[in-house]
Amino acid sequence: MTGPTAETQKGRYAKPLPTSNLSYSDDVPEFEPFEGVAESEVTPRAFAPGGVLLEALKINMCQDVNKPKHYTTDYYMQNLVVRRGQEFVMQVTFNRPLAPEDDFHIEFAIGSDPSPNKGSLIMVTFGNRGSGSWSGRILQSQGTAVMFGITPNAAAIVGKFQVYVAISTGMGMQRTKRDPTTDLYLLFNAWCPDDHVFLPNEAERQEYVLNDEGVIYQGSSTSVTERPWTYGQFERGILDACIFILDTSQTPIYDRGNVVKLVRVGSAMMNSQDDNGVMVGNWSNDYSLGKPPTSWTGSTKILLQYANTGVPVCFAQCWVYAGVFNTFLRCLGIPARVITNYNSAHDNTGNLKTDLLFNADGTPDRRNTRDSIWNYHCWNEVMTKRPDLPPGLEGWQVVDSTPQETSDGYFRCGPAPVIAIKEGHLCYPFDCGFVFAEVNSDVVFLKRDKYGDLTPFRVDKTYIGEKILTKAVGSQEQNNITDTYKFPEGSAEDEATMARAEAYGCERDHSEMPEDDLSVTVIVEPCVIGQDVQLVVTFKNQGKVLRNVTAHLDCDIVFYTGVVASHFKDITFDVTVLPYQSYSVPFKIPAYEYQTQLSSQTCLRFIVSGQSGNLHVLDLKVLELQTPDLKVTLNGEPLLNQEMGVKVEFTNHFSFPLRGVNLSLEGAGLIGPKSKYYREIPPQATITWQETFIPRLPGLRRITALMDCQEVRQLALFASFSHKVHGYITLTQIPANNISIHIHYLY
Amino acid sequence: MTGPTAETQKGRYAKPLPTSNLSYSDDVPEFEPFEGVAESEVTPRAFAPGGVLLEALKINMCQDVNKPKHYTTDYYMQNLVVRRGQEFVMQVTFNRPLAPEDDFHIEFAIGSDPSPNKGSLIMVTFGNRGSGSWSGRILQSQGTAVMFGITPNAAAIVGKFQVYVAISTGMGMQRTKRDPTTDLYLLFNAWCPDDHVFLPNEAERQEYVLNDEGVIYQGSSTSVTERPWTYGQFERGILDACIFILDTSQTPIYDRGNVVKLVRVGSAMMNSQDDNGVMVGNWSNDYSLGKPPTSWTGSTKILLQYANTGVPVCFAQCWVYAGVFNTFLRCLGIPARVITNYNSAHDNTGNLKTDLLFNADGTPDRRNTRDSIWNYHCWNEVMTKRPDLPPGLEGWQVVDSTPQETSDGYFRCGPAPVIAIKEGHLCYPFDCGFVFAEVNSDVVFLKRDKYGDLTPFRVDKTYIGEKILTKAVGSQEQNNITDTYKFPEGSAEDEATMARAEAYGCERDHSEMPEDDLSVTVIVEPCVIGQDVQLVVTFKNQGKVLRNVTAHLDCDIVFYTGVVASHFKDITFDVTVLPYQSYSVPFKIPAYEYQTQLSSQTCLRFIVSGQSGNLHVLDLKVLELQTPDLKVTLNGEPLLNQEMGVKVEFTNHFSFPLRGVNLSLEGAGLIGPKSKYYREIPPQATITWQETFIPRLPGLRRITALMDCQEVRQLALFASFSHKVHGYITLTQIPANNISIHIHYLY
Repeated sequence: MTGPTAETQKGRYAKPLPTSNLSYSDDVPEFEPFEGVAESEVTPRAFAPGGVLLEALKINMCQDVNKPKHYTTDYYMQNLVVRRGQEFVMQVTFNRPLAPEDDFHIEFAIGSDPSPNKGSLIMVTFGNRGSGSWSGRILQSQGTAVMFGITPNAAAIVGKFQVYVAISTGMGMQRTKRDPTTDLYLLFNAWCPDDHVFLPNEAERQEYVLNDEGVIYQGSSTSVTERPWTYGQFERGILDACIFILDTSQTPIYDRGNVVKLVRVGSAMMNSQDDNGVMVGNWSNDYSLGKPPTSWTGSTKILLQYANTGVPVCFAQCWVYAGVFNTFLRCLGIPARVITNYNSAHDNTGNLKTDLLFNADGTPDRRNTRDSIWNYHCWNEVMTKRPDLPPGLEGWQVVDSTPQETSDGYFRCGPAPVIAIKEGHLCYPFDCGFVFAEVNSDVVFLKRDKYGDLTPFRVDKTYIGEKILTKAVGSQEQNNITDTYKFPEGSAEDEATMARAEAYGCERDHSEMPEDDLSVTVIVEPCVIGQDVQLVVTFKNQGKVLRNVTAHLDCDIVFYTGVVASHFKDITFDVTVLPYQSYSVPFKIPAYEYQTQLSSQTCLRFIVSGQSGNLHVLDLKVLELQTPDLKVTLNGEPLLNQEMGVKVEFTNHFSFPLRGVNLSLEGAGLIGPKSKYYREIPPQATITWQETFIPRLPGLRRITALMDCQEVRQLALFASFSHKVHGYITLTQIPANNISIHIHYLY
Repeated sequence: MTGPTAETQKGRYAKPLPTSNLSYSDDVPEFEPFEGVAESEVTPRAFAPGGVLLEALKINMCQDVNKPKHYTTDYYMQNLVVRRGQEFVMQVTFNRPLAPEDDFHIEFAIGSDPSPNKGSLIMVTFGNRGSGSWSGRILQSQGTAVMFGITPNAAAIVGKFQVYVAISTGMGMQRTKRDPTTDLYLLFNAWCPDDHVFLPNEAERQEYVLNDEGVIYQGSSTSVTERPWTYGQFERGILDACIFILDTSQTPIYDRGNVVKLVRVGSAMMNSQDDNGVMVGNWSNDYSLGKPPTSWTGSTKILLQYANTGVPVCFAQCWVYAGVFNTFLRCLGIPARVITNYNSAHDNTGNLKTDLLFNADGTPDRRNTRDSIWNYHCWNEVMTKRPDLPPGLEGWQVVDSTPQETSDGYFRCGPAPVIAIKEGHLCYPFDCGFVFAEVNSDVVFLKRDKYGDLTPFRVDKTYIGEKILTKAVGSQEQNNITDTYKFPEGSAEDEATMARAEAYGCERDHSEMPEDDLSVTVIVEPCVIGQDVQLVVTFKNQGKVLRNVTAHLDCDIVFYTGVVASHFKDITFDVTVLPYQSYSVPFKIPAYEYQTQLSSQTCLRFIVSGQSGNLHVLDLKVLELQTPDLKVTLNGEPLLNQEMGVKVEFTNHFSFPLRGVNLSLEGAGLIGPKSKYYREIPPQATITWQETFIPRLPGLRRITALMDCQEVRQLALFASFSHKVHGYITLTQIPANNISIHIHYLY
């Protein structure tokens, strides 16, 4: 009743709008009589130069010639994949050599009810008639075999086209039979200057379009950790899965050449909200109804499961959304990368203040604090022109598919020009203000009086968006791109940006804070799960009067979203700090105090606050507990199409057994996602897992192993290993001590 | 599984975001101990200046004083309704006179989990402490009765607030008991210069905020018809229904002071798509599952049915969406009006070309034409500042709640600044490009060659958005506001606007058309249903050579959306036009040829095309068939709270009986929606219907009678009648010949 049906809408549209790449058999009839020619009159003999009616016998899409030129060799599929705005060749074998008066064209059709003036039905002609939006030329004729060169428009619809040769019989057009094997996949083209996604630099194209492996940064700004991610955009079924996602979103076919619309749709479709999209978010300790977000090694398993079932996949958190979205984008040919923003603000009134509330006695007011600061948040950037905006806003654009509130009322975000965020031009679509707050909010520490009224006592303008990282081009290095989002704090440009943002209605904090001559800092030593935590609290008195300080140390276990999972320790203590002196107090938190309460978190937060008269000083630190190593080794020569072996080893150095352990392995172009289950690994026990595989693709490849332990806490451990697989040239392995091993935990 | 649950999201938010105006009983405890005071220690005797503990015994919201000053007298409800940014008074009776050391404040709370730093919990103090965002003062103390003046912030959240007096007992705050009768409704304030919806002109405020009756223009640009509409924003239950709509949309409470966000939500919520909103669209001939769009006389019935059931109401078309949306906006205090755009383009590729296809022989190609031109389309405008945009874009903003495709992927549209559309600044949110196309598209007439290729042979740059109307302020006159959307066609400013639009990616037609010396026009006489249609086709030859023309007249019945319902006549004829001469051919279409095929439409479209050699000329006209009169008379003196009578008469002058006839009556402040059913009205028969009512509101009032005939075709007939109802002053009726009667038909 509430949804529109063909019946209730029939008076609204001349024709229903095609919203699927699929087509109906009768969309393109095999014989179409000319206007005014009755079916009855039709005789296929009507028109025959040289006595013999022209017929197309065979169509060859020339994969071997086209794929390398279009950088699509790696796509694991039968059909030809090419990029728009660049010529590809196809060979048609006729029943006789072409005659000048032969009247024919080649057709490309996409979606149901294809139409020539909507770009979903293209007729490519060859001199004999006026040409359409795609240009065509005859490259070579050898007897009955003719080689055609065809250049799709640089703004063409992206997706799967049907290919036909249509020949005039005088009475009508005779088409070749529908042949799925000649279907053509057309992608965006970062190599084509006329394409909105053009990227001039080859190294960047190799990274942002063709690299099917990546690294997603996590942890905290002070201790960055790396999670290898297998994008796998070339793996079997992935391109079809991406088109399936567009069809599920019911994006009109006519819009599928528009990169701005497409990435916005993508950001909405990656999450299940509103539109039954790809992934279900889950930020809790209970993943029993699906797979824990930490347990994924890459995107392919998720995309294939979604495409096969049509049911949203459980479960994801921000880096999973960003990883899968990146696959979707690169697979369609859109330059894309994953970004990590450290100390990402989530203010739910959309202003530039993140409010942390404290009680009169200096203890955190957990009951009334509503805003939260994520240790980190991941999103994507795409590189594109913005024809919908004034000049100067092209380039990297933020798109975020993690479901967040109030992004224009729906769970999607962007594209938002990074330069607009840097300069505070928040008036342009889409969602610039939202992203601006994530990287620029001030942290306002408020004290709550007995009536519940709030007074700010400290403002931190540098904590939020402290560091913004993405993987460097052509290496595993960090690329710090904070300066693409922000001018240096306090610089004139920064002030101008903030003023502009405020003019656009972003409320800021302007409370004047007195210059305190007392300060406090807390320093926490890196620590492995199961060890005692060491920290030192230091008060510094820069004034000329002695300070008696009542101090409070608050210890919480937090989600990576900054939300408190549990509160496990309070220490109140008094110190006296002499004029111009510092005073340090060391603390030791025994492992047993936090361990039993960790559940699935590995993030400890320490807040120390001190009061001296009307002075209130404060410091906050987050500690990511580290987890032990996983060892991965390869054996056999890395040769294309030749079997190799991989071995994963782990020793449980904990004092307790690990239960319900999942081991998984994945390597794009090498080995598909595999996994192994261990009921229990006792203390000091070692497990060993061996697998064999056959490299499918050459070049620098990587295998990722991951260990995910359901019980006690979840550990996600990685070993990522790079080696060259060349046609038949073997390279020696990188020495073992070069194996970069990244240890992660669950958020 | 796919939706977020509190459980799966608990690690995401410090607190779930309140998205409902409703609150929980424990949100505001009656006694709240101060921080650090244990419940056990609490004794209400702790603090008592003058020996007696202060207590608030009674709260009086002073309706009679506040309502007139806030222009909210007409709201039919028990509770006080005021507008933000303007002082209202309330009287609190204490158990004893106030003492200077008394420690208390007045609280206003909205939604669940109200918070002082999010604007959902406001503590108004009176000198004794620092004040919050709402200011308060003591106006007068008479013994124990104290009169307070309170001024809500001009940007305050809009909705229903709970009111408490909170008094410090030393141990904690003692609140007055929850009392629903003191709940306060806060609205936007067009009278307040600090409110974003401020409207300086009083006459405009009276019309766009307070007028609960209106006129919606329909028909065609050449024959405009008027449909009276009862907005009824003050009627019983309507304000609560509007808040229910916001709650259903889950708009965060914190956003409900933001007019830009609120009107965008409204445009999405009026239609049932995406969000199970208010109305289901139906453009067909079958309304058996609900009420026909033509059968509504106003908004109240629809809003109340939705609020009572939570189920979308069947059925609506554009003017119904616009009418109900207008009620929603005015009810919340947002200045709003209904707009009608004649010849509204619905191009489904979002470019500036509306393509009409013709076959080689000049006949319309119905099979392949995808775009359509609506005879008219209705939307709304709201008056507001745009803090989210650069200066100069404030003022009227387009919002459209009729579900249309590709408005950013969801069924909603706007707010789009009218000035941005006029000047082609399409880069600003929301949906400027979409509205721009509706009023500025070119109509491109394309001829389809035998291959299916298309060549333009005529471009009409003035047809689309030919006229844009809204009801004038304080009268029933038309106000032509076309010039607020467009510069004069062909002017320098117009060219600049078009160039700008193109720069933002709106594709335009640039095909060069030859200057024809042959032209054709068709003129159609106005005609009542059941009469023969008279039309004259005139060819004009401005050349010096004789023209032999093969002409074709095509007759269709169309929906108001321009979509062809049925094709009922074709005439092919030849004419010879001498040099510098005209030649006219008259045609008569007998009633029986169209009548049987009308079904629920009353719109005839005539396309005449002529070919002379390679010349192709064409003209297109739409005829709205007229329908007969309905007579409405009043009896009794128009006195407040005194019974009157209304009589509706109709005579069936058709040669056939009318079956399944529904008569309905409505008049804001006079008589609620009433209806009467007649199984059959034979030819020449007259029906008479009498009702009595008691005027509730004074001033210029109107009654609308409507007749809706299900069978044969649907007729919607109106009589709108204005008369003054004054306190106790009686005015003589306007003479009968002054009764404005508007006759409509169904689309």
